Amino acid sequence: MDFSIPERLAPVLREIHDFVNEVLIAEEPELLQTGFFTAEARLGALREQVKAKGWWLPQAPRELGGMGLSVLEHGLVSEVLGRSPYGHYVFGCQAPDAGNLEILHLFGNEDQKARFLQPLSRGEIRSCFAMTEPGTAGSNPTQLACTAVKDGDDYVINGCKWFTTAADGAAFAIVMAVTTPDGPKHGRASQIIVPCDTPGFSISRNIPVMGHRGEGWASHSEIRYEDCRVPRTNLLGEEGAGFLIAQERLGPGRIHHCMRWVGICERAFDMMCQRACSRQLDGDKTLAHKQLVQAFIAESRAQINAARLMVLDAAWKIDNVGFSAARVEISLIKFFVADVMMKVVDRAIQVHGALGLTDDTVLAFYYAHERGARIYDGPDEVHKVSAARRILRSYG
Amino acid sequence: MDFSIPERLAPVLREIHDFVNEVLIAEEPELLQTGFFTAEARLGALREQVKAKGWWLPQAPRELGGMGLSVLEHGLVSEVLGRSPYGHYVFGCQAPDAGNLEILHLFGNEDQKARFLQPLSRGEIRSCFAMTEPGTAGSNPTQLACTAVKDGDDYVINGCKWFTTAADGAAFAIVMAVTTPDGPKHGRASQIIVPCDTPGFSISRNIPVMGHRGEGWASHSEIRYEDCRVPRTNLLGEEGAGFLIAQERLGPGRIHHCMRWVGICERAFDMMCQRACSRQLDGDKTLAHKQLVQAFIAESRAQINAARLMVLDAAWKIDNVGFSAARVEISLIKFFVADVMMKVVDRAIQVHGALGLTDDTVLAFYYAHERGARIYDGPDEVHKVSAARRILRSYG
Amino acid sequence: MDFSIPERLAPVLREIHDFVNEVLIAEEPELLQTGFFTAEARLGALREQVKAKGWWLPQAPRELGGMGLSVLEHGLVSEVLGRSPYGHYVFGCQAPDAGNLEILHLFGNEDQKARFLQPLSRGEIRSCFAMTEPGTAGSNPTQLACTAVKDGDDYVINGCKWFTTAADGAAFAIVMAVTTPDGPKHGRASQIIVPCDTPGFSISRNIPVMGHRGEGWASHSEIRYEDCRVPRTNLLGEEGAGFLIAQERLGPGRIHHCMRWVGICERAFDMMCQRACSRQLDGDKTLAHKQLVQAFIAESRAQINAARLMVLDAAWKIDNVGFSAARVEISLIKFFVADVMMKVVDRAIQVHGALGLTDDTVLAFYYAHERGARIYDGPDEVHKVSAARRILRSYG
Amino acid sequence: MDFSIPERLAPVLREIHDFVNEVLIAEEPELLQTGFFTAEARLGALREQVKAKGWWLPQAPRELGGMGLSVLEHGLVSEVLGRSPYGHYVFGCQAPDAGNLEILHLFGNEDQKARFLQPLSRGEIRSCFAMTEPGTAGSNPTQLACTAVKDGDDYVINGCKWFTTAADGAAFAIVMAVTTPDGPKHGRASQIIVPCDTPGFSISRNIPVMGHRGEGWASHSEIRYEDCRVPRTNLLGEEGAGFLIAQERLGPGRIHHCMRWVGICERAFDMMCQRACSRQLDGDKTLAHKQLVQAFIAESRAQINAARLMVLDAAWKIDNVGFSAARVEISLIKFFVADVMMKVVDRAIQVHGALGLTDDTVLAFYYAHERGARIYDGPDEVHKVSAARRILRSYG
Repeated sequence: MDFSIPERLAPVLREIHDFVNEVLIAEEPELLQTGFFTAEARLGALREQVKAKGWWLPQAPRELGGMGLSVLEHGLVSEVLGRSPYGHYVFGCQAPDAGNLEILHLFGNEDQKARFLQPLSRGEIRSCFAMTEPGTAGSNPTQLACTAVKDGDDYVINGCKWFTTAADGAAFAIVMAVTTPDGPKHGRASQIIVPCDTPGFSISRNIPVMGHRGEGWASHSEIRYEDCRVPRTNLLGEEGAGFLIAQERLGPGRIHHCMRWVGICERAFDMMCQRACSRQLDGDKTLAHKQLVQAFIAESRAQINAARLMVLDAAWKIDNVGFSAARVEISLIKFFVADVMMKVVDRAIQVHGALGLTDDTVLAFYYAHERGARIYDGPDEVHKVSAARRILRSYG
Repeated sequence: MDFSIPERLAPVLREIHDFVNEVLIAEEPELLQTGFFTAEARLGALREQVKAKGWWLPQAPRELGGMGLSVLEHGLVSEVLGRSPYGHYVFGCQAPDAGNLEILHLFGNEDQKARFLQPLSRGEIRSCFAMTEPGTAGSNPTQLACTAVKDGDDYVINGCKWFTTAADGAAFAIVMAVTTPDGPKHGRASQIIVPCDTPGFSISRNIPVMGHRGEGWASHSEIRYEDCRVPRTNLLGEEGAGFLIAQERLGPGRIHHCMRWVGICERAFDMMCQRACSRQLDGDKTLAHKQLVQAFIAESRAQINAARLMVLDAAWKIDNVGFSAARVEISLIKFFVADVMMKVVDRAIQVHGALGLTDDTVLAFYYAHERGARIYDGPDEVHKVSAARRILRSYG
Repeated sequence: MDFSIPERLAPVLREIHDFVNEVLIAEEPELLQTGFFTAEARLGALREQVKAKGWWLPQAPRELGGMGLSVLEHGLVSEVLGRSPYGHYVFGCQAPDAGNLEILHLFGNEDQKARFLQPLSRGEIRSCFAMTEPGTAGSNPTQLACTAVKDGDDYVINGCKWFTTAADGAAFAIVMAVTTPDGPKHGRASQIIVPCDTPGFSISRNIPVMGHRGEGWASHSEIRYEDCRVPRTNLLGEEGAGFLIAQERLGPGRIHHCMRWVGICERAFDMMCQRACSRQLDGDKTLAHKQLVQAFIAESRAQINAARLMVLDAAWKIDNVGFSAARVEISLIKFFVADVMMKVVDRAIQVHGALGLTDDTVLAFYYAHERGARIYDGPDEVHKVSAARRILRSYG
Repeated sequence: MDFSIPERLAPVLREIHDFVNEVLIAEEPELLQTGFFTAEARLGALREQVKAKGWWLPQAPRELGGMGLSVLEHGLVSEVLGRSPYGHYVFGCQAPDAGNLEILHLFGNEDQKARFLQPLSRGEIRSCFAMTEPGTAGSNPTQLACTAVKDGDDYVINGCKWFTTAADGAAFAIVMAVTTPDGPKHGRASQIIVPCDTPGFSISRNIPVMGHRGEGWASHSEIRYEDCRVPRTNLLGEEGAGFLIAQERLGPGRIHHCMRWVGICERAFDMMCQRACSRQLDGDKTLAHKQLVQAFIAESRAQINAARLMVLDAAWKIDNVGFSAARVEISLIKFFVADVMMKVVDRAIQVHGALGLTDDTVLAFYYAHERGARIYDGPDEVHKVSAARRILRSYG
């Protein structure tokens, strides 16, 4: 057992940490107060700095121009990037592009790689992933209603998707649609690449979330597919392999998500401690002298340590034993870390008092926009049930 | 002991309940999607309906044109109004006007009543209450930095206040300012009426809260007072009585706030149950068949019942034994009910899944905008400590 | 609405409170440190005092020699008695005798009343109630395995029961046994009175619970029924009415149980506050000055108030609207109050430090012996599910 | 980073695991149902088996006849031993002997080693450690009241200690007593070895804890020291070094305690899962099909994983960076793991229903006897405050 940061990563991790804290967080207030399209130029400049330092696409293999890190190593990078809402975007490993990049790399044919993966990996275009539907339970993907019917050399897609993150301004979507309605339960859907300028693809609205419609990468769209026709060569992987590929997409993605959440925790924790030390009460006492604040801090520290170690342990298992062996751990971290994040952010707000409710700090942003963590990619309840069932198999 | 709704209130309470559910909630989506100033006309029309039915100012004595309800009775009305974010506004009992109305009624002189109380009670103007300051701990009001210095027949006010709710468009503010800096700890501050068009009164900004600046009644301002001069006749009550009056203002106000929160709970609870029954899963099963959802529902129901009874009990004590005897209860409900509200809203969101994050329901609004309940009027931690200290006196 | 103690009860309640605090609690250490059979004489003397004061059988109608209190009124008495583990026993309203007394009164024929109810109501004999079985899920009473087969004028009972509280030394048991195995699900079982000296009735053991076998009234037995033959005239009520009668038995019983738990909370709360005020730390500071202890106290007070009001509200509903209308409330208080009790006792222990673990205070007794509250009469989980289902009916 | 079991330990750990599960747990019911003195012979035989396998004193250096494991390695062994209440005793690493062994090894002189350490390390005698006093706050050891006054070549000890674990039948006590009352706050007390047959050393009682007085190793005594005279050569280490040595004693000890608690969690978790799979409900459904039970299982698994990783991380830090660098982690695990343990045991009881309350399983034993974990060696609250203060230093 060894709990130290991997040696080859330690120095670069420190540098990235400094970059996030000194460069990115300094620009954060401005970036967060404008819409994405306004921020985009500035973000692009930051991306150039990142590329120049050799930190672009930390999660991707070297042949794609990435850093070639292991799941655990990218987890550690993801933690640091999570300290700022634009961290992942600036390093090119933001959802949903990172996941799309991965499945295009694994399942795309040469033509698909040339047209979609290459520009995506260079950050020239953005993409989106369309699975969730308003009318069917996301926790049960076999209920998908969106269909892709073969017609000559084409698929004709019809349906409605929502919470398609970052569709606004994206170049293409990867769409889960039922191609084999009478196939086995998990073999009915396929993933199909749909350029966003395809006729019949239309964004109904950017869904207002917690009072914000957002824009560009920072938005979630509702999208109608009406007789949306793409060539059958846009099929990603095998027909009917939609779920299989989606699983592949979610696996390491959960690690990176969870480590991003840990990064959010660390940021909120630092802010809570700084506030406690600086907020003057009577005499020379600060909030840091109050036991109830001390309890917030100790409990948060314990929970963050717990969350972090659990994610790293799961990442290590994926790297060393394989994704399959880590399925229980992946479900556990999904709900455990999301819960810790919301609790730590909540306590940090409480210690900030009224200030914590305002946009003068990043805490309110996290409070409102990370609440979804307990819902997307499977709500807490689904992960608890699924982890328990898997565990109980060895006792039955 | 008698747990039934007071007989004289029961029928009118049912009518108000129907009005809120059928008229107000029907208009809610539109009202919430526009700014306050746009909504104002429509809200005015609703106010006319309320006046016509004799429900205007439920909390105020009949001589002010109100319904003359007891604290407990208005609590029950407040619960029903809390089911919609504009409920209290439409009935004329919204914060901060309701509190200002009360203290003007109790402490204002005839001139003040004529100029400020009368138009306020008719809903012709709005007001605000300026206590919280960005630089001093709200939980310790003896630290107030804002000063009002006597100069001839005037007070000259200097300082900075923030979270002055509804200042945007208000006709006057009631400002807490230090008039006797060397007085006893709780006798330093006074309350002074400041018309908002007084030179030296300037709104620096509407503070962005959870991503929203808001406007009009639905906003929280940061306000600078620079040599802001008002006649000494604008003093409300005695000089140095600022805290005393503020306590008076907060007492029954907490009941109404807490019952409003209970109303929010009831609304969120109904939505959670409706969603559970309507969200289809496999076969003919809905979310309502899932034990984890059932546990949410049973736990929420128990907590709401608990919260509601505690507030009503405190209200009864105020009505029958006096405010002083109910101080512990009032601190207890402040943190207990706010906690229950946030938990119930959170569970309702969780049961709605992605939909719960959107503005397609009112839940996200409550999640973001009621988080402050655990902070304003004294954060949870301050109320816990203060209740405990009072309790411990009888054991010491 | 009226939250005051009923006028006719207030003075007697105060007297009972003083009796418990001054007489009973003074004898408690001695009573708890010996077995029941040793304590019995002293307990008998205390019972005589109670009878002399006219407080015997508070829950029972006057015709049985009781105080003739309403459910709510007896609830208030039960709260006070709950302050000491022997409170209910000394007043004659202890489980399981109180429940048996009630159903014998409601369903017993004249002969049964003469032979069983009369001596029971005078406290001359004790009884037990045999429902729970080791092999079948208590939450699903339709699975009962114990049978009573008619044979001539007799029932012949075979089966195994456990957690038959107070069987050790009891004069008779009321046994739930299947008499109509092919009847409708809830009509298979009957209640049959079985004198404990009936051949075939044998106590296998007093079950060791948390390290204690106990004895007499303070024990839980495992009992075998082997060809245990009683006359058919020992049937209580109708054949097949077992569940119906059991429900009757549990209804008001839950109120009294829950109020007993509230009494335990009050006792533990008092002890926690006294300890906080007396435990010296540095200088002149006591534990009462520590915010974490203050938070324990404020949170406990809020939760106890909540629990208490919920139980009284449910009691009021039973008295005024009927048991049926209060079913949801009864399920809610079952799990809510038990949870509050365990939390308050746990915090009181924590504030007592090592002392709280010892038998030098009553807290360890409560901690160990009231844990069952979350299990008996239906575990938390069953009550949550059942309350939710009932609630959801009106939304479906 | 590497989350695998250290290679040299893996095979032996598996063997110890099997020994605990197959040999020790098989004898557990018998061992737990008799007093310690009755069980002692059987325990001695088990110790012989352990010695024969080379597993004796896993925590001790080879020169003492131990396995020479690192802190982390012994942590992993401790986890496995924690699966049964007598695990540590049978392997010779039980508290308080393990701690005494360690400080005698580190601070004892040759004579002390020969007379006390040698027989202790062979398991021939038992010892105890006397710090806690009934009248002074354990969380503030500078308040110690027990004194050791020099008189010629002797120390004369006077005072009262309680919760001296395992004093009943011990050969010697290591006693914390004030030798320099006017020394600096943490330099007043010394540790002195007191043979239990010294005149003036008398056990007042075995303190009844949760209804049990216990006996022998499984007891906690209250002990009076009245003019208890021992030679000054019985001083352990330097005069005034009492706290320093006590810290040394607690450091790695906390790791082993915490890993023992993790072992208890694993045992309770296994039992919970086995029960869930075997408890039949309606039809072919078992408790394992119930979502509320599944949630217990998933949440427990997550919390145990979290607890375990945090302890191993702290152990790794002690081994690789030193005890001092791990002080925050050690405080965090103290309260975090104890809390997880109590929650997991509680849920396991709940899933067992009435059976969980009985001594037919080991769960009730854990519930009652491990409650102290949140109190001894510093209550939760003290560790939270102390960890927070240490953390806040770097923000101040």
